[in-house]
Amino acid sequence: MLPPTSPDERETAKVLRAYLRDGVLTTMPRRGRAGASARSDIAPFHVMRVIDAVVARRAAGLPVIDLSAGQPSTQAPSTVRKAAHEALDRDKIGYTNSLGIPPLRAAIAAHYERTYGVAVDPAAVAVTTGSSGGFLYAFLAAFEAGDTVVMARPGYPAYRNMLAALGVRVMELPCGAPTRFQPTLAQLEALPEPPAGLVVASPANPTGTMIAPDELAALAAWCERHGTRLVSDEIYHGITFGERADTAWRSSRSPLVVNSFSKYFCMTGWRIGWLLVPEELRDAVDRLAGNFAICPPALSQLAAVAAFDGYEELDANVARYAANRELMLQALPAIGLDRLAPADGAFYIYADVSRWTDDSLAWGRRVLDECGVAVAPGVDFDPVDGGSFIRMCFAGDGADIARALELFGAWLARQREV
Amino acid sequence: MLPPTSPDERETAKVLRAYLRDGVLTTMPRRGRAGASARSDIAPFHVMRVIDAVVARRAAGLPVIDLSAGQPSTQAPSTVRKAAHEALDRDKIGYTNSLGIPPLRAAIAAHYERTYGVAVDPAAVAVTTGSSGGFLYAFLAAFEAGDTVVMARPGYPAYRNMLAALGVRVMELPCGAPTRFQPTLAQLEALPEPPAGLVVASPANPTGTMIAPDELAALAAWCERHGTRLVSDEIYHGITFGERADTAWRSSRSPLVVNSFSKYFCMTGWRIGWLLVPEELRDAVDRLAGNFAICPPALSQLAAVAAFDGYEELDANVARYAANRELMLQALPAIGLDRLAPADGAFYIYADVSRWTDDSLAWGRRVLDECGVAVAPGVDFDPVDGGSFIRMCFAGDGADIARALELFGAWLARQREV
Repeated sequence: MLPPTSPDERETAKVLRAYLRDGVLTTMPRRGRAGASARSDIAPFHVMRVIDAVVARRAAGLPVIDLSAGQPSTQAPSTVRKAAHEALDRDKIGYTNSLGIPPLRAAIAAHYERTYGVAVDPAAVAVTTGSSGGFLYAFLAAFEAGDTVVMARPGYPAYRNMLAALGVRVMELPCGAPTRFQPTLAQLEALPEPPAGLVVASPANPTGTMIAPDELAALAAWCERHGTRLVSDEIYHGITFGERADTAWRSSRSPLVVNSFSKYFCMTGWRIGWLLVPEELRDAVDRLAGNFAICPPALSQLAAVAAFDGYEELDANVARYAANRELMLQALPAIGLDRLAPADGAFYIYADVSRWTDDSLAWGRRVLDECGVAVAPGVDFDPVDGGSFIRMCFAGDGADIARALELFGAWLARQREV
Repeated sequence: MLPPTSPDERETAKVLRAYLRDGVLTTMPRRGRAGASARSDIAPFHVMRVIDAVVARRAAGLPVIDLSAGQPSTQAPSTVRKAAHEALDRDKIGYTNSLGIPPLRAAIAAHYERTYGVAVDPAAVAVTTGSSGGFLYAFLAAFEAGDTVVMARPGYPAYRNMLAALGVRVMELPCGAPTRFQPTLAQLEALPEPPAGLVVASPANPTGTMIAPDELAALAAWCERHGTRLVSDEIYHGITFGERADTAWRSSRSPLVVNSFSKYFCMTGWRIGWLLVPEELRDAVDRLAGNFAICPPALSQLAAVAAFDGYEELDANVARYAANRELMLQALPAIGLDRLAPADGAFYIYADVSRWTDDSLAWGRRVLDECGVAVAPGVDFDPVDGGSFIRMCFAGDGADIARALELFGAWLARQREV
C-alpha cells in the first residue's frame, strides 16, 4: 500500500501532470487584487489610457487632435537634435555616472545662475530619468512608510499615486479658485500636526496657477521651522505668461527641487530631468540612483547639455503657447466653458464642465470618439471633484487648437446640460 | 510688556533673521541618517563609485583599462544607430504608451518565438526603462512591505538594495561552487516557510553560472505550488558559451521575467528593457508604469525595434566574448588567480582573491590607482564573503584585456599574500 499523500503532495502531482500535458503551469495562488500586491493597487494615470486611445485611433486612420497629453507639439531644439546625432556617431552610449555626466550637472548648475541669479553647486544636481525618476528618489530619501505628506487638490496625480505605492499617507488640501488652487500657510497652520512633507508645484499641473515668490519663501520657512520636507516641483519653469517663476532654492537649501527637460526644453520622450538635493540627502539619493536606475539615459544626457544653447527656439515656443492661451481664453467662454483656472504658466486650461457631466472620464471618452478631440479627465488630478473638470493642453499648433475648439464647440452645443 | 514668546516663536524669529541676513535658511531639523529616511539607508552600488573613479581618472589624463562596469565595449548594432538617426529626424520623441510602443512590444514577443520557440502575447510585454525599471514594477506589483524574498548570494546587488528600500525582507541563500552559485530546490525546501518571492538569474551576475532548463522548470513548479512569485532575471540571455539559456516562461506563465537590451543587444546607456508579466499582474504593472515613469525613453524604444535586425553583429560580439573568456581562463591562473566561477554565460569572471585581501573595495581601489585596471569589488555581490572576491568583465577589447592581465599580473607578483 502506498503511504497516504498530503494535500500538498496531491497539489504537486496535479501541477506536474498539467505541466507534462500542457507545458504550462497555471495554478499560481492569487494574492491581493487579482494576484497583485495591495500596495500596487493605485489609481492609473488615466491620461495614459487616453494616450493609448489616441494611438489606437491614429493607427485606425481616424483623425484626432490631441489636447490630452501634457507635452509640447514641437521637437527638442535643433541644438539638442544635432548633439544627439553627433553623440550617436561618436559615443558608445554606455553607462554613465549614476547622478549624471559631469558636464550636464555643471550646465544645469549654470542654468540657475543665469536664469535665477542663484548659485548652485554642481554636486547638488542629480540628473534623473525625467522628473519621474526625481520624484522616486525624493520620496524614498525624504519619507518613511507611514509618514504623512501634504499636497494641493487638484494636483499632479503621480505624486499621490507614487507616494501611496511607497506606503506614504497622502493628505490632499482642497485648493480652489480663492487661493489660485495653491496651498496656503493658513492651511498648513490648521493641520493637526506638521506633516513629514509638503509637495508644491508652481506653475501647477493641471491649473497653471503660480505661488508668488514671497509666498513660496514663506512656505519654505514654515517647512524648515516644522521639520517638514518641502518638495518643489518646478517642471513648468520657463513657461509663464506674466510674473516669472522663482525657485524654492532662492530662500532655502532644504527643499528637494524637482525639474526636467520635458516641458520648457521640449524633451518629454527623452526622459531626462534633475533634482536639486539638500546636502544631507545627497548620499541617500546617490545610493538610490545607483541601485534603482544605474544611470539616466546616456544619449539624452549628452544631448541635454546642448539644450542650454537653445533658449532662442524655446522662447519662441513659449510665445506660441502664449498666443494659444489667448485664443483659448477668448474662445472657450464662447462655447460655454467659462469657469477656467487662471493659467499663469504651464500650458493647460483646467475647465469646469459640471454643466454637462460629473464623470469626466466617460465624458472625455465621448469627446474623443464623437469629435476626435482628446482631453484629459479631471479625475486624474482631483479624486473628489475631478469628475466635473477637464484639462486641455495648449502647447500644440495654433491652427489645430482652433479647429479642436470648433469641433468641440459644435459638439457641446448638441449636448444636454445636467 | 511684550507677551512671552514660545520656543517655537523664538525659533521662527531666528530662522527669519538668518534668512534676512544670509538669504538662505539652514536650520532644517535632521531625521534618520543625516536627515535622510531610514529606508534610503541602503548599500551603494559600489561599482558605480568605481565608475566615478574611472571617469575622474580619464578626465585627469591617466590611463585606465575598465574591467569594472558590466557592459559591452561596443556600440549598439548599426541597425539600432541607423534607426535612431532616422527617428531623430522624423519623430517628435514625445511621450509614448506607458508600456511601450506597440511595434516594440510585438517585436519583443516575436523574439521569444524565434529564439526560444515560445509563444508570447505582445500584451504580456511591458517595455521598461532598463531592467532597473522592470525590477521596480515587478517588486512593487508582486511584494508587500514585510514580505520575504529569497535570492542567491553572491548575486546582483540591486535586487537586495531595491527590495530593502521598498520594505521587503531579503533572505540570501549562500550559494557556492558545489551548486554553481545557484539556489537549489533543497534550499527552498529547507526554508521555515515558503517565501513571497524568489529571484533567480541565469546566467548570473557576478558568477556567469547557469541554471539547467529542467532545474529552472522545477524551481518554477515549486514556486507555483507554494504561492511564491518567481522573478527570473534573463538579462544575460544570448551570451552563453555552451548550453543556451532557457526562459522561465517555457514551463510556467507565473514568473515575472526581466530582460533588457543592455547586454546581448549592447544598449546599456539607452536604458531600455522589458518584462514578461503574468496576466494577473498586468493591470498593476500598467498603473505603476504610468505613475512611476510615464513611459520608457522614446528614442530608445524606436531604435530598439531595429535591434532584432542586428543578430549577426551581436553574435559576432558574443564570439569575441568567448575568445576573451578563453584568454582569461588561461591567463588568470598563470598570474595566481586560480579559483574562478565557471562563467557558463554573461561576461564576467568572479575570482577569489582571498590570498591577498578580505577588503575587495580598498584592494580594488589600489589596483586602479597602482596599475590603471578597474575591477568591481565582490562586496557589491556578497555582503558576507565578497571582501575576498573581485569581478572582472571580459566584454571589452581582447588586446585591452591582455594588457590589463599583464599589468595586473605584474602588480600581483609584487603583493604580499595574507
